[in-house]
Order: sequence, then C-alpha cells, then structure tokens
Amino acid sequence: MQVAIVLYPGFTALDVIGPYEVLGRLPDTEAVFVAETPGAVRNDLGGLSVGVVARLDDVPAPDVVVVGGGSGQADQMSDGPLHAWLRRVDGPTTWMTSVCTGSLILAAAGLLGGRRATSHWGALDQLAGFGATPVNERVVIDGHYATGAGVSAGIDMALTLAGLLRGDDVARAVQLLIEYAPRPPYGSGSRDTASPEDVEKMFTLFAQG
Amino acid sequence: MQVAIVLYPGFTALDVIGPYEVLGRLPDTEAVFVAETPGAVRNDLGGLSVGVVARLDDVPAPDVVVVGGGSGQADQMSDGPLHAWLRRVDGPTTWMTSVCTGSLILAAAGLLGGRRATSHWGALDQLAGFGATPVNERVVIDGHYATGAGVSAGIDMALTLAGLLRGDDVARAVQLLIEYAPRPPYGSGSRDTASPEDVEKMFTLFAQG
Repeated sequence: MQVAIVLYPGFTALDVIGPYEVLGRLPDTEAVFVAETPGAVRNDLGGLSVGVVARLDDVPAPDVVVVGGGSGQADQMSDGPLHAWLRRVDGPTTWMTSVCTGSLILAAAGLLGGRRATSHWGALDQLAGFGATPVNERVVIDGHYATGAGVSAGIDMALTLAGLLRGDDVARAVQLLIEYAPRPPYGSGSRDTASPEDVEKMFTLFAQG
Repeated sequence: MQVAIVLYPGFTALDVIGPYEVLGRLPDTEAVFVAETPGAVRNDLGGLSVGVVARLDDVPAPDVVVVGGGSGQADQMSDGPLHAWLRRVDGPTTWMTSVCTGSLILAAAGLLGGRRATSHWGALDQLAGFGATPVNERVVIDGHYATGAGVSAGIDMALTLAGLLRGDDVARAVQLLIEYAPRPPYGSGSRDTASPEDVEKMFTLFAQG
C-alpha cells in the first residue's frame, strides 16, 4: 500500500506527522512525502524542513492521500498542479483524506461537493462555500473521503482509517505502539468546551483560527 | 525562549513533532532542530528526512531541551557527543524533557539518577538500571526534568510544560489552536487498558515495545 502525504510551503507539522506515524507503521506500507517540486518544504512556523521524496507527478495512483492544513493552505486554493493531481488520483485512491484546513484544499479542488466533511473549527463554515456540508465532528467519513478536525485530529482520523483498511486488531495494535491514551491537561481543546476567555486568548495570541 | 529539539538517525517522528507543535507556537519562542552533525536526519521508518538547523555545539544554553525516542535510541546509549552536550546544557536549561525512550538517553547520560521518570511502557523498567525510579504515568515531572510516556504522550507533556512556562491561559489557548480534544477510536492505547490480544498482536506486527 502506498500513502502519499502532501507537503506545501507553510504546512502544519503535526497535521501530517500524526497520520504519517499511524499509517506509515501499517505492515506492507510505504508512506511518501510528495510535493509539486523536489527539494525540501518548510512548515508554517518556519523551523522545520522536510525532504520531498517524490514529485506529485511521480505518484500517479496512491492508495491513500493525506492533505494537511496550515497557514500555507491559503496559497493552495487556486486551481493549479496540486488541484489537478488531486482530481487525477481521486479515482485510483482507496481513501482521500485531510486534516485541519486540508479539507478546504480538497473542497476547492472540487472533490467534496455534496459530501459531509470537517475541518479546523475556525474554518469549518468555509466548507459550505464549496458545496460541502460542514460537520462538527472529530472524524467524518463520507464515501472514500475521510476528513479530520484541527491539527491533532489527524491521529484519530488515521487510526480510524487504519481500522477500515486493515481491521480493528491491527489498528488497536498501532494505537498501543504509539501509546495513544491521551491525557490533555486542559478541557479547552474544542470550540464546544473552550471558554470564551480561551477563544479570546487564542485569537489575541495567534490572530488566526 | 529557545527550545532545542534533538534529532538522531532513527528518531520517531511524532515523539518530537508533538512537542514541537506545542512549544514552537508559544509566543517569543524559537524552536530549533539540533543534531550532532549538520545536514538532514532520517527517522526510524525511513521515509522522513528533517533538516538540522544547528549542531549541538552551536546551541550552548537552550531554555528547553526535547529528546525523543525511536529505534535509533539504542545507538545513543553510549557516552559520546550527545551525552556530553546533554550534561553541559543541563545546568543552563529551565526544562530538560523527553518523550518515549528519549528518557533512556537522558538516564544513560547520567541525568536521571534518583529521579522519578517515565518512558514508553515497553521500556519503562529499563530506567531503573540507570538509578531512576520508573513511574507509570503519562507525564512525570521531577525537578526540572519532564518526561513523557510513549510517542503520542509528547503532546500532553508539552502542553503541561507550556502551562508551567507561560501560565495556564496560554497553554489552554494553544490546546484550542491545535484542537486537542482527542477521541481515540480504541481503548488499547496504554498497557493498562490494552487486552492480552492487543499486546500479542503488537509484538507480532512490530517485534518491539
């Protein structure tokens, strides 16, 4: 099985590394970091540089595609090589997936029309503008599209997918391997449980969402 | 504030990217990927190549150090440049931290003698051989040492640390930004909750732990 993990300048690291760590550990699986051009791609914070293993055109029929979000997502909303590749591989793929605002890229490429999908809570409403139905859930599956909520939700999305791809017993073993028994120190992790002060602080500190 | 994230060949990606995503987003913070030699470092699965921003010797007084685990941890247990650097920066650092089997490296470098610490569940017992006290908890803090359990626990460790470094309000805002409201699809994520079948399957599939 081949998993293609899409990189573009300004990607959010955890969006793609969460799914990579889960899907890349599945038996008989090759996970490759792909991008429009060869070289290395820098993340949104600027400190992480990840090597590109293959150009988009070199990966014509991946079994799974993962598109993450990040501040650079805004530059990937116009039609171009990434959108064209996503539409081309959408047929061959078993699963087309996204994390965070990666779903906006899938939607802008025309793949999520009439589909239920999720995204980072701060971007969820934007899905409707592309004909998708925004769903406020951690992981949403509709047809062969699996979308995850913001950043850390990629781990949940990928474990869910691992179960669908290889069976619950394999996915359970991967969850044990990565010791995924989370203990968030706060209850502020979702828009539904965060306080108004949490939301205000977040916007003040990060001016995004 | 400077956060030094240690890379070595065979590191586990999520071990270091979890803390990077949290700590790297704190205001007025520079997170740098450091390694013994310049260039790029490849992970345990082999598909991820991360650029080294600075050599260990170029970072003499980081405020926070993060050491992750991975199959390559076994090659970092002998005294050498990494151990020497860890001992040297242990004084200047505010927090010396680890995720997964990274704590074995800290322990082998002589830093955890008499300290309570955690690690990946499959490696936890090994801490005692270095004079540390193994503690089966997700995040353990003793003095200025913060250790996290396996792989995904780095997110919990880093959010806990973010609260100690910058206050609960800032840490809560970061948790909201990365939408960390986990929904693990299975209950198999810890040795305490996994079934005997989960453990057997994990060892069969991955021959490690």
